[in-house]
Amino acid sequence: MTVLSDLITAMTRGSVRVIDLTHTLDPDFPVIVLPADFGQCARFRMEEVSAYDHRGPAWKWHNLSMSEHTGTHFDAPIHWVTGRDAPNGATDSIDPGVFVGPVCVIDFSAESARSDDATLEPAHILAWEAEHGPIPADCWVLLRTDWSHRQGAAYLNLRDDGAHSPGPSPEAVRLLLERGIRGFGTETVGTDAGQAQHFDPPYPAHALIHGAGRYGLQCLRNLDHLPPTGAVLLAAPLKIKGGTGSPLRVLALIEEPAP
Amino acid sequence: MTVLSDLITAMTRGSVRVIDLTHTLDPDFPVIVLPADFGQCARFRMEEVSAYDHRGPAWKWHNLSMSEHTGTHFDAPIHWVTGRDAPNGATDSIDPGVFVGPVCVIDFSAESARSDDATLEPAHILAWEAEHGPIPADCWVLLRTDWSHRQGAAYLNLRDDGAHSPGPSPEAVRLLLERGIRGFGTETVGTDAGQAQHFDPPYPAHALIHGAGRYGLQCLRNLDHLPPTGAVLLAAPLKIKGGTGSPLRVLALIEEPAP
Repeated sequence: MTVLSDLITAMTRGSVRVIDLTHTLDPDFPVIVLPADFGQCARFRMEEVSAYDHRGPAWKWHNLSMSEHTGTHFDAPIHWVTGRDAPNGATDSIDPGVFVGPVCVIDFSAESARSDDATLEPAHILAWEAEHGPIPADCWVLLRTDWSHRQGAAYLNLRDDGAHSPGPSPEAVRLLLERGIRGFGTETVGTDAGQAQHFDPPYPAHALIHGAGRYGLQCLRNLDHLPPTGAVLLAAPLKIKGGTGSPLRVLALIEEPAP
Repeated sequence: MTVLSDLITAMTRGSVRVIDLTHTLDPDFPVIVLPADFGQCARFRMEEVSAYDHRGPAWKWHNLSMSEHTGTHFDAPIHWVTGRDAPNGATDSIDPGVFVGPVCVIDFSAESARSDDATLEPAHILAWEAEHGPIPADCWVLLRTDWSHRQGAAYLNLRDDGAHSPGPSPEAVRLLLERGIRGFGTETVGTDAGQAQHFDPPYPAHALIHGAGRYGLQCLRNLDHLPPTGAVLLAAPLKIKGGTGSPLRVLALIEEPAP
């Protein structure tokens, strides 16, 4: 037996299962809203080209439009000015080995239920490590907030002073980068907190993580179905020429403990 | 050790590697061309929204448009009229376990070099099985033609009477479905041969495979880097609401033989 045949055998037996961490691409799914002076993120749109009719008797298909950052999506280093010169920083130049890797899940759902502005701090990460062991180098870290259960306007949670949603402090991001993480993913519309424009630096998850040549994932769901450690994340963006990011299907492989 | 920790260890050691089977999404990449009366497949387009400038000082991103069937892409059962009523036949309703699975690669490159209309027949499949063992149930089958090395007009290979490119005969498709394959993938712009409108039934790969509730992959590359058996295919389409298919990143995990 080999590692890959063991994997297929375990999937066939059901001891390794696939969990879908992806929201449906649907015109109603919210996208990030920026101040009006800035370029905006396109919502997902689809247009029927044929539906087993005179436009194509045996086939149905759609043309699509969206942003690189619509729905469940991947952020490449060149998305942020701090990562603009990162080697292999675009969706078509990243080593594909990056797209399959180990994942740690930090449960921040209780804190996020208590405050829309809950901020992940180094103390939360150190408490997680005290329970689950050190975050290994080159591991994805996903922040469970249960924000993916929110519907409609409550998801972006916009107020007069902007969005309010959980995210990491600059110090928390620095600690994750000290651990050598591969990337950081969230259930919210961005890797940064809704009010992260007031942090120093502003938008630390974007500025520091992409500045380090690492990756982001946003609008994830089903993180409450993942173990704290031991799952494998499959997150492969579209291979867009010079792409800054991409909608994608994010999956996790999880393994039932041996009886 | 568990199956998943063994996988991560093997990837870290380099004995399991990721091969990218995806063409770059680029406005120049050709798409299928249908008779003028029919709805057409949109090419890939990208539009800059900001590039670290007044439209977004710290970030760069693009809006995108394409078809569900542009570039390296996945065909869901509802793409074809024969699969319109398939349970879980759309990209958002397929069991995500389908997106990770074993793969057999049939090397049809010599035949494809000899004739642009090379047709995969049952005899080729039986000869492959005599050498490599039976095609297991629920396995992807990919047809290596080296067609992915073609550039520009030679890729579609359009003549006055339509496209000329290799593909399977109806009998070959029926044999693959008897084996219970999960899906069938090609390097060409479609799963069917360029002249498959003249087959009985027309377009057998589409008509029979989607009619059986199974899946297609098209515009693959790097199939010459895969072993005949033993690789694992990662092919997860975008989760488009009622989607008939999707551009996607297709990866394969391959394992070096133990020394």
